[in-house]
Amino acid sequence: MKLSKNRNPVVPGFKAVGLSCGIKDKNTKDLALIVSNVPATAAGVFTKNRIVSPGVTWSRNALSKSKFCRAIIVNSGNANTVVGPKGFEDCDAITKLVAEELSIPQKEVLIASTGVIGVPLPSHKILQATPKLIQSLGRSQKHWTDASEAIMTTDLVSKSDKVSFDLKGHRIVIGGMSKGSGMIHPNMATMLGFLWTNAVIDSKTLKLALIEATDRSFNRITVDGDSSTNDCVIVLANGEAKNPTIKPNTSGYGEFLKALTKICKNLASKIILDGEGATKFVTVCVQGGKTRKQAYLIANSVATSSLVKTALFGEDPNWGRIYCAVGNAGAPFNPEKVDILLNKNLLLKNGCPTNLSPKKLEKAMRQHEINITIDLHCGKEWEEVLTCDFSYDYVKINAEYTT
Amino acid sequence: MKLSKNRNPVVPGFKAVGLSCGIKDKNTKDLALIVSNVPATAAGVFTKNRIVSPGVTWSRNALSKSKFCRAIIVNSGNANTVVGPKGFEDCDAITKLVAEELSIPQKEVLIASTGVIGVPLPSHKILQATPKLIQSLGRSQKHWTDASEAIMTTDLVSKSDKVSFDLKGHRIVIGGMSKGSGMIHPNMATMLGFLWTNAVIDSKTLKLALIEATDRSFNRITVDGDSSTNDCVIVLANGEAKNPTIKPNTSGYGEFLKALTKICKNLASKIILDGEGATKFVTVCVQGGKTRKQAYLIANSVATSSLVKTALFGEDPNWGRIYCAVGNAGAPFNPEKVDILLNKNLLLKNGCPTNLSPKKLEKAMRQHEINITIDLHCGKEWEEVLTCDFSYDYVKINAEYTT
Repeated sequence: MKLSKNRNPVVPGFKAVGLSCGIKDKNTKDLALIVSNVPATAAGVFTKNRIVSPGVTWSRNALSKSKFCRAIIVNSGNANTVVGPKGFEDCDAITKLVAEELSIPQKEVLIASTGVIGVPLPSHKILQATPKLIQSLGRSQKHWTDASEAIMTTDLVSKSDKVSFDLKGHRIVIGGMSKGSGMIHPNMATMLGFLWTNAVIDSKTLKLALIEATDRSFNRITVDGDSSTNDCVIVLANGEAKNPTIKPNTSGYGEFLKALTKICKNLASKIILDGEGATKFVTVCVQGGKTRKQAYLIANSVATSSLVKTALFGEDPNWGRIYCAVGNAGAPFNPEKVDILLNKNLLLKNGCPTNLSPKKLEKAMRQHEINITIDLHCGKEWEEVLTCDFSYDYVKINAEYTT
Repeated sequence: MKLSKNRNPVVPGFKAVGLSCGIKDKNTKDLALIVSNVPATAAGVFTKNRIVSPGVTWSRNALSKSKFCRAIIVNSGNANTVVGPKGFEDCDAITKLVAEELSIPQKEVLIASTGVIGVPLPSHKILQATPKLIQSLGRSQKHWTDASEAIMTTDLVSKSDKVSFDLKGHRIVIGGMSKGSGMIHPNMATMLGFLWTNAVIDSKTLKLALIEATDRSFNRITVDGDSSTNDCVIVLANGEAKNPTIKPNTSGYGEFLKALTKICKNLASKIILDGEGATKFVTVCVQGGKTRKQAYLIANSVATSSLVKTALFGEDPNWGRIYCAVGNAGAPFNPEKVDILLNKNLLLKNGCPTNLSPKKLEKAMRQHEINITIDLHCGKEWEEVLTCDFSYDYVKINAEYTT
């Protein structure tokens, strides 16, 4: 699929590095570190799967104990999940060494892993590489590219981005990177998102903004409907912009949230564009909803329907499948008020087919970007879920992952 | 896949027919009729999709108005769904003509449709064929085979079965047929089930038994997780066995329920065995549950996971995906108590990998029948969901359905 360009994610006061420590073979990068020069306020959101990686537990605990964070260490190639007590012991040992080498408190080091589950983490390789990792930290775009490459698993391309805006004369910059492709988040391909900004914002407000932003971005993408044991999105704010502290319910918060949502949505879209075997970039928008929940349930039902996704791959104008998925969402609505549009072609008006010419519809289906809009005409709430189609290659990639 | 043999579903007092009325081309059978010689008690269960076919509304209303039913007319090739007011008018006209020709009340005629949605039903073809349909009714196995073939859509084979048992010296027989393959129930391939028995049982008790039986059979199968707008299961009981009337909470009810569940499960299994592109017959059993709901949510999460299903197709011993789907079910459980078995091989004990030899596991994955057992060790409830794997052919069949 057509991929969007990665913007240089450099933000003043942050350093990064990515290298190979030997978890993956062929010298493939598999270890990344992000470091803030000063203690940064921090917030994270984590997977809702009831089975979680020890790394998720570690980072969640660290964020509850300390409002600050200095470093995030991330490995790919192994999820460090479902491996017994060794999993948590490894998190302890790794974060301890990183903290020692950086001369910072251990609770200010977060950790994340992605890769195959059930295989013990070769933590000695990470420990062995840690001194070199820290020596190699740097501020250049190359360093950030290396870091974003080191967190990839089945991803075909690395994913990074940057946004900026002026807040009362201060230039606020937010950089970020993400990974995930067989999605959300197959076979522990896991979705990871990391963000860093020079804004002055307290950790509580940062958490609020992160939740709002992820609920319009990372939490609204789906490739195959599964949530990994390792998913997380973490944001650090080092305050170097010296803006007046951003507080909830202010115009400054609104602007920060808008920028954070934008970069999260860009990074989430890159995941969809890199979806396993994907050939279409699909936006399912439900508008005219009575509640956000109703709109979300219906958008999600359409975006996760295997029947809709295979029809999109086949460029098959089978709108009946879309409507059927609307009915399957488990949310109430009035079937006689529903309109469905595909790339601005009205397929269904008040729940009845418009008998659009099949030729026109087939032409619309051939587009690379597909926008499905469902108007419930019963309120003003909306939700958008991004997804991709389901292709032969999706089956191929996923049938042959560990073997 | 290896298909199970169809048993002759003939039951005394019932006649059937199946023929081509021209909805499908190439003289393919597309119209079936089942008739009871005498008014039969009747019960039905219908799709939970919020968009329903007028046929579903018609039959649901008819069953609420009359406890008896004499005839069920079923067409394939067109779902008569999302077609505006004409859909219900067609149901009225067709059931009216069938009733006139059979000299029975219109409310004792039920109707069901399966096929593509959004295309007006060519009801004139059904009306034109109705006299011939009724003249051709018969009791032979051939007649039932024709009927079961006439309700097929993407099904590769027709599906029928019979069970019997003795109730206080009376031989009770239950026959049935089903359809559905791209499932549950893609692109309106729709799941339909029809059952007929000579038992004496009142309609209220029959409904109770049908709900219990379908909750252990038709409602526990999944190919792709979608529910059609047209799904229904209907049972008729003509009383010709002259047994003492079956009443709830009696041993007779228990035996009837057991037999009804057995035939429903057989007919549901045949749908899985005929699953679109399926190469594996998969049973996901969750046992040791605190509640049936918990067990069901977890079994269903595993059985509907695209990642699990593609791994099964690829014979990839990636048990991490199974465990991840358990965690994604949205039901509480204790991860430290979970055991997972695959064809009797213990993969996970108390939430930790058993490090089974990959060779042994790969051998188990090569079996045609896969039994995944998840023991939660927190109670006595269980649920079983039947499914199949996700293959290249699934994508192929579903990418090219209407085009």
